[in-house]
Amino acid sequence: MIDYTPPLARLIAELKKIPGIGRKSAQRIAYFLLRTDKKNALALAESIVQARETIFHCSVCNNITAVDPCEICSSLDRDDASICVVEEPFNIHSIEKTGLFHGHYHVLLGTLSPIRGIGPDELRIAGLLQRIRAGRYREVILATSPTTEGSATAHYLTEILREYKITISRIALGLPVGSDLDYADEMTIAKAIEGRLEVK
Amino acid sequence: MIDYTPPLARLIAELKKIPGIGRKSAQRIAYFLLRTDKKNALALAESIVQARETIFHCSVCNNITAVDPCEICSSLDRDDASICVVEEPFNIHSIEKTGLFHGHYHVLLGTLSPIRGIGPDELRIAGLLQRIRAGRYREVILATSPTTEGSATAHYLTEILREYKITISRIALGLPVGSDLDYADEMTIAKAIEGRLEVK
Repeated sequence: MIDYTPPLARLIAELKKIPGIGRKSAQRIAYFLLRTDKKNALALAESIVQARETIFHCSVCNNITAVDPCEICSSLDRDDASICVVEEPFNIHSIEKTGLFHGHYHVLLGTLSPIRGIGPDELRIAGLLQRIRAGRYREVILATSPTTEGSATAHYLTEILREYKITISRIALGLPVGSDLDYADEMTIAKAIEGRLEVK
Repeated sequence: MIDYTPPLARLIAELKKIPGIGRKSAQRIAYFLLRTDKKNALALAESIVQARETIFHCSVCNNITAVDPCEICSSLDRDDASICVVEEPFNIHSIEKTGLFHGHYHVLLGTLSPIRGIGPDELRIAGLLQRIRAGRYREVILATSPTTEGSATAHYLTEILREYKITISRIALGLPVGSDLDYADEMTIAKAIEGRLEVK
């Protein structure tokens, strides 16, 4: 059997390092990159290099950014009264897309996970406390995921934030919009009932 | 809403140009490329550039290669008696993996498709005829896909190859190994019955 020509074998090997991209997908992407306009392929390579050369974590909120402080931290249009705590930088984009939250963010860069050896000191919690002490925030919204680790992190933060004069809230758990009650798990239904809102 | 920082927005936009990669996947891959070792990310960029700078089509068989003629065309270990006709360069890899075929290949770089305006002149058929005339091939195996277009291409080639003193064969159509007869379509079952082989 004669294998791929070496530069192609190398490209496929590099693509396979991306989680979720297996052998077949790597091969398909590699062939696309060989067949598409050379300009397109080189633009992708160049954008990877550019992203790695210019993007870093915001020194205030830990969001990923190419300017410090990041666009959100340095914006004059944001609401100084609330700060939303998320696990990862991409969570910010998901919340921004709702158009409902106009305050500031703080990225923990992870969740508590005793199994993986991640304790409070491994997360960006000190910076959060410092911002809450220094700022005029009236509410902190804990928007970590409702996973075991995300919930544990929210619980931990709730405990240490109690000593601050600030409203602590947790994003609502319940049925996703458009979902069928029949297919929801019991934990989700229980949370949806516990968190029910009075219809006025 | 504050959007991605520009170098990240650009990287996501470039990734989305890859067929099969939507907004969510592009975002996931971009974040991976930002979080993985910088060495990994740059190696991917570099392998894309290298592949585009060094890979071209073999002047003999149209396979993709970094040397001309390609590794298969220039190999002394291949069987000079048979030539296998495929649609695309990556089909060669699929056949090589079986370890069953040791002859030469010829890549058409497409299939006949009147709808997309692809006629015989758009495919590398002249080169195939030239090789058959010049070579000592005793058999040509038509290994285009059993799609409408691949089959039409095989039919067309069969007609024009009839004038050459060469055995023309078509890869077998039938049930895929491990599949269930219950789930096979009628055309496939019909082909499997037509193509039945006597058990000896």
